[in-house]
Amino acid sequence: MAAWARAARALLLDVSGVLYDSGGDGGAPIAGSVQAVRKIKASGLKLRFCTNETQATREKFVKKLQGLGFDISVDEVTAPAPAACRVLKERNLRPHLLVHNDVVPEFAEIDKANPNCVVIGDAADNFSYANLNEAFRVLIGLENPVLISLGRGRYYKETDGLKLDVGAYMKALEYACDIQAEVVGKPAKMFFESALAELGVQPQQTSGESWRCTGAEESRSREGRRAAAAPGRVKILGTIMIGDDIVNDVGGAQQCGMRAVQVRTGKYRPSDENHPQVKPDAYVNNLAEAVDLILQQLHE
Amino acid sequence: MAAWARAARALLLDVSGVLYDSGGDGGAPIAGSVQAVRKIKASGLKLRFCTNETQATREKFVKKLQGLGFDISVDEVTAPAPAACRVLKERNLRPHLLVHNDVVPEFAEIDKANPNCVVIGDAADNFSYANLNEAFRVLIGLENPVLISLGRGRYYKETDGLKLDVGAYMKALEYACDIQAEVVGKPAKMFFESALAELGVQPQQTSGESWRCTGAEESRSREGRRAAAAPGRVKILGTIMIGDDIVNDVGGAQQCGMRAVQVRTGKYRPSDENHPQVKPDAYVNNLAEAVDLILQQLHE
Repeated sequence: MAAWARAARALLLDVSGVLYDSGGDGGAPIAGSVQAVRKIKASGLKLRFCTNETQATREKFVKKLQGLGFDISVDEVTAPAPAACRVLKERNLRPHLLVHNDVVPEFAEIDKANPNCVVIGDAADNFSYANLNEAFRVLIGLENPVLISLGRGRYYKETDGLKLDVGAYMKALEYACDIQAEVVGKPAKMFFESALAELGVQPQQTSGESWRCTGAEESRSREGRRAAAAPGRVKILGTIMIGDDIVNDVGGAQQCGMRAVQVRTGKYRPSDENHPQVKPDAYVNNLAEAVDLILQQLHE
Repeated sequence: MAAWARAARALLLDVSGVLYDSGGDGGAPIAGSVQAVRKIKASGLKLRFCTNETQATREKFVKKLQGLGFDISVDEVTAPAPAACRVLKERNLRPHLLVHNDVVPEFAEIDKANPNCVVIGDAADNFSYANLNEAFRVLIGLENPVLISLGRGRYYKETDGLKLDVGAYMKALEYACDIQAEVVGKPAKMFFESALAELGVQPQQTSGESWRCTGAEESRSREGRRAAAAPGRVKILGTIMIGDDIVNDVGGAQQCGMRAVQVRTGKYRPSDENHPQVKPDAYVNNLAEAVDLILQQLHE
């Protein structure tokens, strides 16, 4: 039972939709999640928070979560904006930013004069027609337009309803300019590799069969496991991603060789369970249930 | 010389970027275009204005063009909104409208209560984050989401610069909802067929070789002609489309078997001349030059 939960050493947790449901009022914790994070920390498991949040600096984001009761600090968070900054520096790119006002400070040390690329994040109300046009004109005026996207999410849930995510606007600019964006958030491999590096987990570790599913879960996650067991595929022994997004969290982590489970909170929809490409290693009702199952296996 | 211009019987003219450059101030005629329209009318050639304009009712649009000096009337204009209304009525669809305020009256007779589809047009400043989210929520809440788009243009030029067109926002909603929009404007075949029907041109007429290019144009438009001459392809004898949009005007008309030339005004860009899929039958500097070449061949 719950073979997917065996022999965990490190957990990667998505934040929005797993820890809390966001909203204009700051959001609300998902029942049991505050306690679940405390249990993980008490267990000695390694832990990293992996968010595509680009509506705030990590400082502000962490402060909000602390306000909701979570035991979390800035240096435990992997987020797209710092990843983008590394790419910009490496390639001498000067961005025009189409991002949320509150994430602008993450780019404080980046030269933004005379831009030669566009960085797009979840800009929310900054996704006005005027601002989209401005970003478009920068791109269409470049000989080799470079569009860096802090994620490729379709939509997310806030307390006042579903909202379009950065991926939709990334697609709008891709189409208008006939280009392909470079994604630095989830589900990009680079994002998960950063998180693993920050945890000190070596991606080249290949697992035996210790976490293969059996019994009822066998049939449900057959395709997912088959993909994960494909020859030449690196496996990340003992690391489990827990997320509400079937593509960005589950698919992205599995592509990197990790186990990944989907919670039935946040943006989860029943139709996710028939997703044509991605099959989680398991479904759980929420983070609390996932953590309890994982910790049970540690103690058995 | 100018073999593409031979034996014309009817002309389809794109409007924005061919007759005039639009802009917040109402725009300005392109040099020679007012006279060119007069010459066409004096020649006895059939004429239809084919626009993807969805920022105004046809009445308002025509009034603006008359104000710029053009000889044009509402019943000479083929536009996407009336085409969309026909589709909505045929299929008992009740739209949520994401369109420009000024085109809303075209949908006056359509039932919009309890929407079961979304119609998107070039909504310009109405493309706010809040309005996109509203349209998205209608779609994602439907069992079979139907998105009807009044065009698939990438961008257009106004006097104050390039602006994103409806196609970019259509792609955003397509991606967010994982659906395909149905396009009723150019380059949809249905749009050009409507224009031909309104002109009284029979699409089943197949041409001989009377308008095949020779000489210098032979090599330049080889691929375009090869596609147009493909077996089983209907040709529209004697109808020429003149537009500034390589895909929507030129590609769309050629797909229907017409000749199509691209003007080097409006949204034309030199890179269009290396377009991987679409080769116009010819390039001309502007509408005036195209019309002079066509009329010369009528008189020879």
